[in-house]
Amino acid sequence: MTSNTRRLDVVKNHLSSKFPTMPFDDTLEKYRQRTPSFNKDSLFAIYMGSHHKLIRMLRESSKNSPLINHTAYTFGSREDKHQQIYRIVGEIYTKTPLTYEEDLQDPTKKLNILQVLCEFDIASGTRCTVHMSLYIDTIQNLGTAKHRARIDRAYKLLDYGSFAMTELGHGSNVAGLEVTATYDKNTKEFIINSPTKTSAKWWIGAVGKTANMSVVWAQLIIDGDNKGVHVFLVPIRDFDTHEACKGVVLGDCGEKNELNGIDNGFLIFNNYRVPYDCLLDKYSSITNEGKYKSPIKNKQKRLGIMLAGLLRGRFAVSFASEISLRNAMTIALRFAAIRKQFSEPEKSILDYQTHRTRLIPHFCRMFAIRSGIHYLQNYLSAHSSLFYKDPECEELNELHAILSVFKALASTYAFNGIQECRESTGGHGYSIHSGLARLRGTADVLMTWEGDNTVLVQQTSKYILKQIQRLLKGAKNTSTTLQFVRLDYEISTWPINSIKDLTVENVIKVYHSYINSTAKQTMQKLQENIQKYDNTTDVWNNTQTSYAQTLASVFGEFLYYQEMVSMCKNIANNDPVLAGVIMKIPELYVIDCWERRQRVYIELGCKVESYALLRDRHIELCNEIGNWIVPMIDALASCDNYIGSVYGYADGQAYNRLVEAVENEQGVYEKPTWLSDIHNVRKAASS
Amino acid sequence: MTSNTRRLDVVKNHLSSKFPTMPFDDTLEKYRQRTPSFNKDSLFAIYMGSHHKLIRMLRESSKNSPLINHTAYTFGSREDKHQQIYRIVGEIYTKTPLTYEEDLQDPTKKLNILQVLCEFDIASGTRCTVHMSLYIDTIQNLGTAKHRARIDRAYKLLDYGSFAMTELGHGSNVAGLEVTATYDKNTKEFIINSPTKTSAKWWIGAVGKTANMSVVWAQLIIDGDNKGVHVFLVPIRDFDTHEACKGVVLGDCGEKNELNGIDNGFLIFNNYRVPYDCLLDKYSSITNEGKYKSPIKNKQKRLGIMLAGLLRGRFAVSFASEISLRNAMTIALRFAAIRKQFSEPEKSILDYQTHRTRLIPHFCRMFAIRSGIHYLQNYLSAHSSLFYKDPECEELNELHAILSVFKALASTYAFNGIQECRESTGGHGYSIHSGLARLRGTADVLMTWEGDNTVLVQQTSKYILKQIQRLLKGAKNTSTTLQFVRLDYEISTWPINSIKDLTVENVIKVYHSYINSTAKQTMQKLQENIQKYDNTTDVWNNTQTSYAQTLASVFGEFLYYQEMVSMCKNIANNDPVLAGVIMKIPELYVIDCWERRQRVYIELGCKVESYALLRDRHIELCNEIGNWIVPMIDALASCDNYIGSVYGYADGQAYNRLVEAVENEQGVYEKPTWLSDIHNVRKAASS
Ligand SMILES: Cc1cc2nc3c(=O)[nH]c(=O)nc-3n(C[C@H](O)[C@H](O)[C@H](O)COP(=O)(O)OP(=O)(O)OC[C@H]3O[C@@H](n4cnc5c(N)ncnc54)[C@H](O)[C@@H]3O)c2cc1C
Ligand SMILES: Cc1cc2nc3c(=O)[nH]c(=O)nc-3n(C[C@H](O)[C@H](O)[C@H](O)COP(=O)(O)OP(=O)(O)OC[C@H]3O[C@@H](n4cnc5c(N)ncnc54)[C@H](O)[C@@H]3O)c2cc1C
Repeated sequence: MTSNTRRLDVVKNHLSSKFPTMPFDDTLEKYRQRTPSFNKDSLFAIYMGSHHKLIRMLRESSKNSPLINHTAYTFGSREDKHQQIYRIVGEIYTKTPLTYEEDLQDPTKKLNILQVLCEFDIASGTRCTVHMSLYIDTIQNLGTAKHRARIDRAYKLLDYGSFAMTELGHGSNVAGLEVTATYDKNTKEFIINSPTKTSAKWWIGAVGKTANMSVVWAQLIIDGDNKGVHVFLVPIRDFDTHEACKGVVLGDCGEKNELNGIDNGFLIFNNYRVPYDCLLDKYSSITNEGKYKSPIKNKQKRLGIMLAGLLRGRFAVSFASEISLRNAMTIALRFAAIRKQFSEPEKSILDYQTHRTRLIPHFCRMFAIRSGIHYLQNYLSAHSSLFYKDPECEELNELHAILSVFKALASTYAFNGIQECRESTGGHGYSIHSGLARLRGTADVLMTWEGDNTVLVQQTSKYILKQIQRLLKGAKNTSTTLQFVRLDYEISTWPINSIKDLTVENVIKVYHSYINSTAKQTMQKLQENIQKYDNTTDVWNNTQTSYAQTLASVFGEFLYYQEMVSMCKNIANNDPVLAGVIMKIPELYVIDCWERRQRVYIELGCKVESYALLRDRHIELCNEIGNWIVPMIDALASCDNYIGSVYGYADGQAYNRLVEAVENEQGVYEKPTWLSDIHNVRKAASS
Repeated sequence: MTSNTRRLDVVKNHLSSKFPTMPFDDTLEKYRQRTPSFNKDSLFAIYMGSHHKLIRMLRESSKNSPLINHTAYTFGSREDKHQQIYRIVGEIYTKTPLTYEEDLQDPTKKLNILQVLCEFDIASGTRCTVHMSLYIDTIQNLGTAKHRARIDRAYKLLDYGSFAMTELGHGSNVAGLEVTATYDKNTKEFIINSPTKTSAKWWIGAVGKTANMSVVWAQLIIDGDNKGVHVFLVPIRDFDTHEACKGVVLGDCGEKNELNGIDNGFLIFNNYRVPYDCLLDKYSSITNEGKYKSPIKNKQKRLGIMLAGLLRGRFAVSFASEISLRNAMTIALRFAAIRKQFSEPEKSILDYQTHRTRLIPHFCRMFAIRSGIHYLQNYLSAHSSLFYKDPECEELNELHAILSVFKALASTYAFNGIQECRESTGGHGYSIHSGLARLRGTADVLMTWEGDNTVLVQQTSKYILKQIQRLLKGAKNTSTTLQFVRLDYEISTWPINSIKDLTVENVIKVYHSYINSTAKQTMQKLQENIQKYDNTTDVWNNTQTSYAQTLASVFGEFLYYQEMVSMCKNIANNDPVLAGVIMKIPELYVIDCWERRQRVYIELGCKVESYALLRDRHIELCNEIGNWIVPMIDALASCDNYIGSVYGYADGQAYNRLVEAVENEQGVYEKPTWLSDIHNVRKAASS
């Protein structure tokens, strides 16, 4: 059905609804009015950070765009979805074109543009991230002056790029990639090949239908010698004809769990010859005599440095996580105010203790992720020029460790929070028009791409343990965030034995103790395993569960908490009304973390009475923050058409909108086309 | 595209694959061979229980059915899905027709037939459950002799029934339903009406396209007096023409998160007149003079008894949960054996500690749900005739309490386990061909329907607390499972301080203590709240989080554990090889429960050293069970075509099957139809 006939149908159906009419439902509005009013703009500005005006501008400018339409997206074919998302990217991008120079000046602006795209769907954000961050940043980081022209083409969207690392057989283990680039001394070309089925590049965003360029990760072979993984900037489709280049097979990876607006594709190379200049040669080159040269001798280290450049792609996951969770919270909280059940008169389910304790902790986690974003933005702005100069600097190592655990925590928080939103809406959350399955399905992949969470947090724990190893060797702890990690750290006794003990200082004390104690336990486990296993891989792998993994997560939580405290203080300072509630958000966040990993209490010797106190405080805080939650989410929520849920509209007309959406679907009132089957079964069963 | 042209395309693509060929992959086979062989049939028989032969027979008979086809299901339109699922129901049902008499004799047979349908998809199981359990059982439980003919028609599939309780505005709160059935003394008819938009019956399975009959829950109004909710057996579609009956509006609720094979629909009544005999009148009737009569005077109690009959629908959720989790485990475990990553030579990810600790606990939970099914089957077989005679008997109350928490635990275990399977497959789990999104999406609704989990567990905690109230009044504890709950119960000190202390007796001791102590805390909280709030609803609602909810869950876990121990002992007795590993399953289950709710340690005074011991034991058990896991899942897994995942096939050809599936999708190698958009964006962006 074309969109025009569909639109006519919508009008027709609206006039001919078979449902009883329902007057304007003022439940949500009344719920809002229960809370004292506060300055929503100030909350928005501080929460969104330095680019808040840009965000507001982009949202506003697309508020009425016919492209920002979830009904069309949901019911369109995969091909329709590709097109719609591509058009959205085009629309937003042409409103805020960027240049290389601007990006160097403000390395976080790009991410904030992507963010608004993600408010509609992670598919549109990612369509852009792959090109703007994975592709362009790789050229920026690993290329040299001669590649500059490609960067400019990319910023102009003349070239559309892709990032071809993953293969059918290898994802996390980049060193194990199978595609080869064999150097031909005679012609000064590389011959790229996919020798096996498992070596097909797989999942590559924009390769299915769009991209004409790609940065391809492949084993560099010179004179039969494998020099390790290197990156090649190559055309994959003819710019004019859009045909796959000769020697390249391109295809679409097909239907996914969600994100079908992205054309993830596969790439197979058959003796594909590309000139020498395709090698991104900042860290390695080949002399005229055909000899390999690199300032970094160790293969593994070289790969590490190449990967370290992928900062912003990974950073984008924190944005996407926060946004998906925020959209889901908007839906679930507005619905919970509107939905009444039980009691006389019936109560909004948002007034139930269970409902508040289910949802509000996820609202606090949303603040946590956001705080992490502020942290990373500040770090990146302060140091990014240094990173280009010295990719081995301590600051980059530290950022990498923090980014990794933030990525893992943020994506896990998002998925779990969205799922709680889904469950909390009861049967209504099972309608496609709730938008919750889409949000869940898109957030799901955030745990996998840009570094699988289980693999990624190992980077963080390794970083922490390395600091300890330095100390053991008598060297200095080089980390700015981990100065409290010391060999002689005295684990304090549990300091919180009444609610007035629940101060920022005491929380920090708990974390300092807990991180030191977990680090120590992990070191001991490593020692034990060294006796037990004969290779370092097994030693390390068998130190993960309950040890290294916990260490990384607790460190991440701690940083989140600290940053939340400072963000919330800032909010309090700007609004005397919010000052009465806002500091409860980091407080609940931290008790909630402990409630989910109660071994902090066991291991730091918290008494059962003190534990019970905190458990009850958790409930109390959920209740108190719950009284403010509707207008708070109003202040932060995206626009109705970005969110795309009948239950999430700011006007609260959930039931009317649901019925309208359902009556507009195809064939609602029609007899089944397969009526004869019913007759056949009747006959068969009764004979 | 018709299915015929599609099939031709499949053949064509297979011959013309553009991928390098891959020889037979023997990784899975080799992994299997690492484990000593054991008797798989015996494991299957004990695990599946008394109907294991029926299950095997039904599976086998549909093994080659063209209807058992997930590719068709996935890519079909919603209309196609309705048809396919309806046909499957017809096929399976005509193979094992049931009668009323047979059902009375063996009340669990029905559920085992539904189970095999769920092995393909919960949609087909539910298509059948709604008709065979919700509809028929309601007539059995609430109807009288005059309704018998309708039961027989339903068993013959002449009538297709539906169960119309939920409305747009009300689900959990059945007493708040808005549809009215007003008695007209003069004509001896009921006039059924949907007075408001929110009173539209909503989500009603089979109402969208299929059902001709329904049991409708409505407020009975006699002489302007509301007698509370009653049930009416009414035609909704004309048997011959399949048109909606006059006075009835029927439609389809539209696209859902999953389960689109079920035609959930809405129902609106406009002065729909039905004769007196439509009232299911076992517990209430109207005299010739138009006076209301019921042996049960209290409205709420009457509703409770009506609802109590819905046993088997709720029971079916445990089956569906176990099956979805089992299918997902089959996929994730086989994939984990096949998938190699890191180390030299590369290791199967199933050999990683993290991977085992992520997946194996869910395998144990699958055993837990299954044990619960055995428990319920035995209970039902033993008591079902009593239930018909005395719907107020203690046995039914107890069963209801147990069923409720089992339903909630099982569905939560299933959802969480499937999600872990999804994450554990990395990017591959994000392909639609993994089947994991479908399994997750279907399991999701299990937490909501047949009683929302948060609401339902309140039935269990209420039951336990009622026993305590009896004791407080000096009466007897009437529960058979809760005899250990006593007012003078002495909470024991933590009994497990070495691994050899980890005996069944000690675990039971922990649970007895923990349940008694949580019950006591809950009673105290109730007392506190009685001082604080002025109505019983608020008192109760504010005793949920951390108290009543925990009480119910811990009780459920305990019953699961006990039943698992007896099932696993049975397995051990029948197979000396498995005897070496099988008892580790309940052991891991229980430590895993404690690891996820560590307050059991805090509240029962477990020392930090003992806790650390159990934490490490958890990891060790995951590792040990992991060595057996592949052949164990082989023994229990459904057939390949039922599971429907390229990664889940018993033959382990994951990569070949994935590529085949993707190349068979439409338009894989085609240029985008929206190529002009790419050109337009290039122009706009560069101008
Ligand atoms: C929709 C989508 C889009 C994508 N877009 C791109 C793209 O544009 N370009 C690109 O190059 N890639 C892309 N990817 C690929 C993505 O980056 C990979 O899926 C991701 O890196 C994980 O790798 P994998 O899928 O191979 O999983 P694997 O690495 O095989 O992991 C499988 C499982 O094994 C576990 N595991 C693996 N190694 C270890 C270990 N050492 N210790 C413990 N556990 C381990 C993991 O935790 C995981 O559970 C995309 C993927 C998806 C799904
Ligand atoms: C696919 C599908 C098929 C279905 N098929 C049928 C069918 O065939 N026939 C039929 O009659 N129904 C059917 N249902 C309806 C289903 O039974 C209801 O969705 C379910 O009972 C939950 O009710 P609700 O959706 O109104 O949620 P609500 O009751 O509105 O609950 C919403 C939220 O509020 C919370 N909540 C509500 N009350 C309380 C409380 N007292 N304390 C704490 N929290 C509370 C819940 O936990 C939930 O999170 C179906 C639903 C779906 C999604």
